[in-house]
Amino acid sequence: MIAIDKQQTNWKPIIKEFEAALGKTGVVQRKEELLTYECDGLTSYRQRPALVVLPRTTEQVSEVIKICDKYNIPWVARGSGTGLSGGALPVENCVLIVTALMRKILKIDLENQRVVVQPGVINNWVTQAVSGAGFYYAPDPSSQIICSIGGNVAENSGGVHCLKYGVTTNHVLGLKLVLPDGSIVDVGGEVAEMPGYDLTGLFVGSEGTLGIATEITLRILKYPESVCVVLADFTNIEAAGNSVSDIIAAGIIPGGMEIMDNLSINAVEDVVATGCYPRDAEAILLVELDGLEVEVATNKKRVAEICLKNGARNITSANDPETRLKMWKGRKAAFAAAGHLSPDYYVQDGVIPRTQMAYVLKEMEELSKKYGYRIANVFHAGDGNLHPLVLYDNSVPGALEVVEELGGEILKLCVRVGGSISGEHGVGADKKCYMPDMFSETDLETMQWVREVFNPKGLANPGKMFPTPKTCGEAARAKMEKNLAGVELF
Amino acid sequence: MIAIDKQQTNWKPIIKEFEAALGKTGVVQRKEELLTYECDGLTSYRQRPALVVLPRTTEQVSEVIKICDKYNIPWVARGSGTGLSGGALPVENCVLIVTALMRKILKIDLENQRVVVQPGVINNWVTQAVSGAGFYYAPDPSSQIICSIGGNVAENSGGVHCLKYGVTTNHVLGLKLVLPDGSIVDVGGEVAEMPGYDLTGLFVGSEGTLGIATEITLRILKYPESVCVVLADFTNIEAAGNSVSDIIAAGIIPGGMEIMDNLSINAVEDVVATGCYPRDAEAILLVELDGLEVEVATNKKRVAEICLKNGARNITSANDPETRLKMWKGRKAAFAAAGHLSPDYYVQDGVIPRTQMAYVLKEMEELSKKYGYRIANVFHAGDGNLHPLVLYDNSVPGALEVVEELGGEILKLCVRVGGSISGEHGVGADKKCYMPDMFSETDLETMQWVREVFNPKGLANPGKMFPTPKTCGEAARAKMEKNLAGVELF
Repeated sequence: MIAIDKQQTNWKPIIKEFEAALGKTGVVQRKEELLTYECDGLTSYRQRPALVVLPRTTEQVSEVIKICDKYNIPWVARGSGTGLSGGALPVENCVLIVTALMRKILKIDLENQRVVVQPGVINNWVTQAVSGAGFYYAPDPSSQIICSIGGNVAENSGGVHCLKYGVTTNHVLGLKLVLPDGSIVDVGGEVAEMPGYDLTGLFVGSEGTLGIATEITLRILKYPESVCVVLADFTNIEAAGNSVSDIIAAGIIPGGMEIMDNLSINAVEDVVATGCYPRDAEAILLVELDGLEVEVATNKKRVAEICLKNGARNITSANDPETRLKMWKGRKAAFAAAGHLSPDYYVQDGVIPRTQMAYVLKEMEELSKKYGYRIANVFHAGDGNLHPLVLYDNSVPGALEVVEELGGEILKLCVRVGGSISGEHGVGADKKCYMPDMFSETDLETMQWVREVFNPKGLANPGKMFPTPKTCGEAARAKMEKNLAGVELF
Repeated sequence: MIAIDKQQTNWKPIIKEFEAALGKTGVVQRKEELLTYECDGLTSYRQRPALVVLPRTTEQVSEVIKICDKYNIPWVARGSGTGLSGGALPVENCVLIVTALMRKILKIDLENQRVVVQPGVINNWVTQAVSGAGFYYAPDPSSQIICSIGGNVAENSGGVHCLKYGVTTNHVLGLKLVLPDGSIVDVGGEVAEMPGYDLTGLFVGSEGTLGIATEITLRILKYPESVCVVLADFTNIEAAGNSVSDIIAAGIIPGGMEIMDNLSINAVEDVVATGCYPRDAEAILLVELDGLEVEVATNKKRVAEICLKNGARNITSANDPETRLKMWKGRKAAFAAAGHLSPDYYVQDGVIPRTQMAYVLKEMEELSKKYGYRIANVFHAGDGNLHPLVLYDNSVPGALEVVEELGGEILKLCVRVGGSISGEHGVGADKKCYMPDMFSETDLETMQWVREVFNPKGLANPGKMFPTPKTCGEAARAKMEKNLAGVELF
């Protein structure tokens, strides 16, 4: 990676080039304005970019990247900045390429169930654009009213409906890309079956390290005939977890299946007052069923039976959109509500095999006690994707460091039981030091090969996703020790 | 690419090294025995390999590849050799690495719905191993009783059930790979959500050009409660096509949806005598519905209504496994039956947007007339994946060349209407010259970057997937002419 020092760089002619490419309004350079961009949703990491540029077209993105390439300036792409792993965190003296002005829906093809959008288009807008005709876009992160499709592509975002319908990568058919040398490339296409390497799949989830997607072809789905939300409450969180396993084992695939614990329930009731979540429940389980009316009715009965068998205290359900929305409102507001429980919170995003849920919940309770920080649990239970929210106060010196260590322990726990360090938030700046816990050196090297071939100068989102000796000193050391421990000395 | 000439190579010490790695029985070198391996399912291309090796473990595959790397010997991987695009076609003086002895199912984890297999395991064995417990493996190529999972991974194989459940890539969680330098790498894992680049997705469908998968972690699915096959027959093939569009537009996603034309119907009735397909029908449409009993019953009614509205002459259906099997038997035997219509046949595998079906069928009829060859049509109608079978006699000098040209015209037609040159059979040796019809030079170059980074010496399956000036002279010329035509001369 080549980094340049702003102090040593003569930015004036460079800014002129950016202005020539984008117009004056396309370049942000005043310090006060740059402040907005110094972090994404992972607010504990901050770095002001040297410049922000706001292209409007693929060609402008290409010109911007060519200027960066010419002057060896590192660059970071940013959508709405709602990412939770610091993927859009600027690096020192970088140009931040913000897609906020690339918000056109370029094509709607209902007959073939696809939509082409620019990367700045907000997730929710896609559904809004096609819902009148009976279609929707399935991936639905909690932040869907504000997060951008480009950001979703970079992080391979999930959401509550990804249990049945899959994450972003399952809904992207093709991409127009600007690569780190400024070249414009099309990958994938308008039909799902394309010959050659699946570069679309490679690009989705590559966290801005391989280029920028400037046009995205999305698959849209037909609305189901009927939708029903079942809400079961439990006096015991393991019983909620066991219900999830039993529902899946029964061959039911709900649209979404979410668990919230007592702390989260009370947090969201304090803030958005859904009135649906009993404050004294140890856990609630939300199950959304969709499909034909007869199918939903049958599955509703089966889900209720399974929950009752596992000891559910109460079961309610709703088919009408208004009540359903109210039932989901609390879940969707869970992260924001955590901010009301405590001055700060740190969201973790780990994955475990469903069968390990009871064990992992108990271990997390132990970790919470050991470190002395409360943990609110909210999770995509159906696919074993945990979102523990560690509550802390950043104004207490050293608190963040301890909380990050606790977060790391949770991730290691996930890996130990055969899971993953990230379900849907990405690796970014936050988790790169944990990559060696999941992958061997050879595995990581192979990924780096791919990075280097697209991004040979390392200017595209440097320092993200992969561990670096500078920032992951300790992790690197631990790994070395582990390796040494394996050496046979006799 | 480095090619070696067998005549100029001293194979003796090389064979010794292979024998040391695999044992004498692991190396095939007698000319008569090598004959078996000179082609795959695309029998019009033939090339005898210099040697065949039969490793049993990941480590042996790695040793074999290291020997090839050391002596710069090109190598080609082969599963059961049922591929239809010549992906496993040997190249001159190559070592063919055959996975026929790697047929262990390594792990069955029903609770987490996954199975780990060696690449030589036959597709159908996976379902057989787990069906007692109520599970199955979804991708089901017609050749599923003989094709290998490793081959399925290489070609990203589909099948009749891929409309609802997706192709191979949607069912592979992780891979152990041997790369062209002999190194062993793990990509993906045991859970679907993995951080870092999606190298699993990149590898699936890479047609043996990036390495060999030696352990494959597959997702298995729970059997649906109920399955029903609806068979509608039409006096007009467009009406069958319109029914498909209307079924999808109604929000129904059948497990599979297949059309066969009159020529195919009669071919299969001649050979397997299902007794279900009316010989005077212009087309039959097979729709498989699965899910809850109530859901299947409702959808069966809706599908029947849609077909009748489009002019279906008769509709029959079956829920019992025996009749369902009989109904599918003809479709699964369609390729083999084409061999009874004519001494030889050439299968094409193109994709079109569903909405273009009527137009494309008419154009294909014109092409059939123009070239004077009969075309039997069998297709995965739900996802627009056509399988025209061009009937010809290879003993007629020049016939194959004309048929290949006709096949090429069909592919170009698919591309022209916004489709693809391959749905599920891969590019291989057969279609590489058509890649420039789908991708720009920059797009193809980007794919080649990826190939070169994994396969820098070009020893892994050389000459496949990408156009080469030597073999695609004409296509390359045509492209150049097209490019020149675009040059503004004033």
